[in-house]
Amino acid sequence: MQRAAALVRRGCGPRTPSSWGRSQSSAAAEASAVLKVRPERSRRERILTLESMNPQVKAVEYAVRGPIVLKAGEIELELQRVMALCTYPNLLDSPSFPEDAKKRARRILQACGGNSLGSYSASQGVNCIREDVAAYITRRDGGVPADPDNIYLTTGASDGISTILKILVSGGGKSRTGVMIPIPQYPLYSAVISELDAIQVNYYLDEENCWALNVNELRRAVQEAKDHCDPKVLCIINPGNPTGQVQSRKCIEDVIHFAWEEKLFLLADEVYQDNVYSPDCRFHSFKKVLYEMGPEYSSNVELASFHSTSKGYMGECGYRGGYMEVINLHPEIKGQLVKLLSVRLCPPVSGQAAMDIVVNPPVAGEESFEQFSREKESVLGNLAKKAKLTEDLFNQVPGIHCNPLQGAMYAFPRIFIPAKAVEAAQAHQMAPDMFYCMKLLEETGICVVPGSGFGQREGTYHFRMTILPPVEKLKTVLQKVKDFHINFLEKYA
Amino acid sequence: MQRAAALVRRGCGPRTPSSWGRSQSSAAAEASAVLKVRPERSRRERILTLESMNPQVKAVEYAVRGPIVLKAGEIELELQRVMALCTYPNLLDSPSFPEDAKKRARRILQACGGNSLGSYSASQGVNCIREDVAAYITRRDGGVPADPDNIYLTTGASDGISTILKILVSGGGKSRTGVMIPIPQYPLYSAVISELDAIQVNYYLDEENCWALNVNELRRAVQEAKDHCDPKVLCIINPGNPTGQVQSRKCIEDVIHFAWEEKLFLLADEVYQDNVYSPDCRFHSFKKVLYEMGPEYSSNVELASFHSTSKGYMGECGYRGGYMEVINLHPEIKGQLVKLLSVRLCPPVSGQAAMDIVVNPPVAGEESFEQFSREKESVLGNLAKKAKLTEDLFNQVPGIHCNPLQGAMYAFPRIFIPAKAVEAAQAHQMAPDMFYCMKLLEETGICVVPGSGFGQREGTYHFRMTILPPVEKLKTVLQKVKDFHINFLEKYA
Repeated sequence: MQRAAALVRRGCGPRTPSSWGRSQSSAAAEASAVLKVRPERSRRERILTLESMNPQVKAVEYAVRGPIVLKAGEIELELQRVMALCTYPNLLDSPSFPEDAKKRARRILQACGGNSLGSYSASQGVNCIREDVAAYITRRDGGVPADPDNIYLTTGASDGISTILKILVSGGGKSRTGVMIPIPQYPLYSAVISELDAIQVNYYLDEENCWALNVNELRRAVQEAKDHCDPKVLCIINPGNPTGQVQSRKCIEDVIHFAWEEKLFLLADEVYQDNVYSPDCRFHSFKKVLYEMGPEYSSNVELASFHSTSKGYMGECGYRGGYMEVINLHPEIKGQLVKLLSVRLCPPVSGQAAMDIVVNPPVAGEESFEQFSREKESVLGNLAKKAKLTEDLFNQVPGIHCNPLQGAMYAFPRIFIPAKAVEAAQAHQMAPDMFYCMKLLEETGICVVPGSGFGQREGTYHFRMTILPPVEKLKTVLQKVKDFHINFLEKYA
Repeated sequence: MQRAAALVRRGCGPRTPSSWGRSQSSAAAEASAVLKVRPERSRRERILTLESMNPQVKAVEYAVRGPIVLKAGEIELELQRVMALCTYPNLLDSPSFPEDAKKRARRILQACGGNSLGSYSASQGVNCIREDVAAYITRRDGGVPADPDNIYLTTGASDGISTILKILVSGGGKSRTGVMIPIPQYPLYSAVISELDAIQVNYYLDEENCWALNVNELRRAVQEAKDHCDPKVLCIINPGNPTGQVQSRKCIEDVIHFAWEEKLFLLADEVYQDNVYSPDCRFHSFKKVLYEMGPEYSSNVELASFHSTSKGYMGECGYRGGYMEVINLHPEIKGQLVKLLSVRLCPPVSGQAAMDIVVNPPVAGEESFEQFSREKESVLGNLAKKAKLTEDLFNQVPGIHCNPLQGAMYAFPRIFIPAKAVEAAQAHQMAPDMFYCMKLLEETGICVVPGSGFGQREGTYHFRMTILPPVEKLKTVLQKVKDFHINFLEKYA
């Protein structure tokens, strides 16, 4: 109806029936009548149908999209200012912008073709932004050097992950590439694996042990996979999505040693590297640990790691900014990678600029520094508070168990679903946790994603809930989930 | 060197050798020494090599990327203003922005999650922007209605084209999907076809007839293709890239009838719809002609058409904005399409906003209208002038023949390459036109793309040159090409 109204608002030219000025709903009905010129029965069979389409695409599953807005918070001023200056350079003369923001914007613009965000950039990304990313990584990793030539700017992290997977997948039959992913996983992985017709090799995170990654489990998974595919890639999500665990340094070393031993290409999804809340945890990058393990590892293990503008304390997901750093990538493959990226011309230049602001924040002495630091601490402090709050409140509910949210932005509690509810779900041809989440949505308006969309051990049920809403709202949400759950248990007891 | 300098500038933390403060070149050498911890010979065989990589990706060819900046011109003010307001909403209070720009920005922001370009949007794109696109199409097509539900916002047109092709490709052996593309073509098509392991079916444009599309040639191509694949898709580029022809209404009708007859899914790449210069030509959209041909066609022929923010008179390619309109797409396939788009979350929201400004320009009575119209006419008038100039100057050179540039942004002249030069090219293991373009680059600094990257009839040679440089610069460039060409003919006579 909104649509038809928009058409009316704008005027549709001579061919539009004048009756479109009537009530919105009749206008909408009419619009659809005009579009469907002939009744459905006279239609020929279509070329593109579920039967004739690409079966790999049909097999893709992707659970987490929806109307949920992922927005980290309020720390937008610095980014908004620099972006506005880049977008409309006339503002560089305006006295109402701080000097350091102007300096940043000028530097980015000078590196852009035609001094504008509106021009294509190099396919690998704007040079000076790749330099800033490399400098950021070097600082983050306590001096382990990063080479801008190894940095590829991407359209969000998803784009980088699917691009590198696209290059990695090959072979047929038992030689088809196997890609190891954690279960539970972020469903980008299973979706891209399906699209590429690669073989998904699951390794299970240890829920009883705070979703830790156990190398024995990796070993089991790879051994079993060798019967039917060629395991060539190991994907790690740290901090975990949806599981929120933060890997210990020891665990990362073990994983790297395992990848070295089994000759696996490592994909380290580190988009939540700034989102660590537990005082006992620290983020360690795979790149840093790799270098600290010595030359046998640092000159042999092939690694791609990913970061994004969409998480952290900025949460600027709409700009679709991201980068990938590759280590030990064969020079010929680098050429192939640039060629493949070239087909899409370049990542959005505004997303590249946003990435620059994320990796190159105000420093002490600059005009914007104090405000920036205050806001950053407030956002991260708030998230930490909400992580703890969510864990505590969930664990007070009978039939819900929630591991500590060490990092990232989600709770992934385990929920007990009574046998009668499982039966009711089956009667509706739904997975039990999908049934649960649908009921939750219907009864409370709260939208969470069922665990089956991420994968979980047979017979266990979970859902993923973001901790992004403001504290008071989050408390209300958690209280509603609690009431719903208790009621649900009673109803299906 | 710049890189090492950047590292020095930012300070690399405790692990950085202090010697990095030395001259840039020695610092760079050292950086590479640090990165290459062990000599190459001790390296194990890599997992990802040219031999082990995805053979489809290896087969991808893509000719047109390079340092060439594609920038339509000066008509940026309207777009820059609205984008700046969307990016930094505090500016909505500034008296230095016109009211209509503020109104546009407010409307876009209200439709965005969290009222910010920094939030994810729906995967199909922001609703009100899809409504504006539908209203634009309706106006453009003289009232033929467009449904916002059929509009998908994309990351540039390339993203839409590759997404719909991804869904279309299926089958094995002789049932593998054949995709018909013009030769010469824009190499996105051949690249995506290769990536998807589909079958490329060439139809040749008629150079002697101003690069016209001849339906008999389509017929020949489809008949021959049926021996080894299942031709299912017909791609049209109108106005042509790199060939610049604008299809007549009659020709479009013939193509649609042919697609209907042969049950082909139509892909209409119409990104240059605003770039028609020849006074004898007009742009006709496939959608409009389809509807005018009556219900047998308009309710049966499956069509996807594409547009972009990167061309037209705005040329805002860096934002990566675009849309796709689908006609007669099966409802189940629409679901599949949204699912596939969801895996990448959403197109860049700033690119979506830029798309809105392209389809929703200032109208008479609004504050910005006069300036906008003046700039638009100036940009398009300028391009028309340069199109004519380029054609005329090329045709004065012996051994160069250039068809009229009816539309788009390129000249694609045919060049005569003497037998001796062909031999010299073979000695260098280069295609003759690649050899020619390399010599041109070396001797004049002018970068053009060899015709072999787009495809051309055996034994003919071309190159693609953009007409975007300012008039005086373009004249200089054309004079240099002329001198080079005459010299080249003499040298290899």
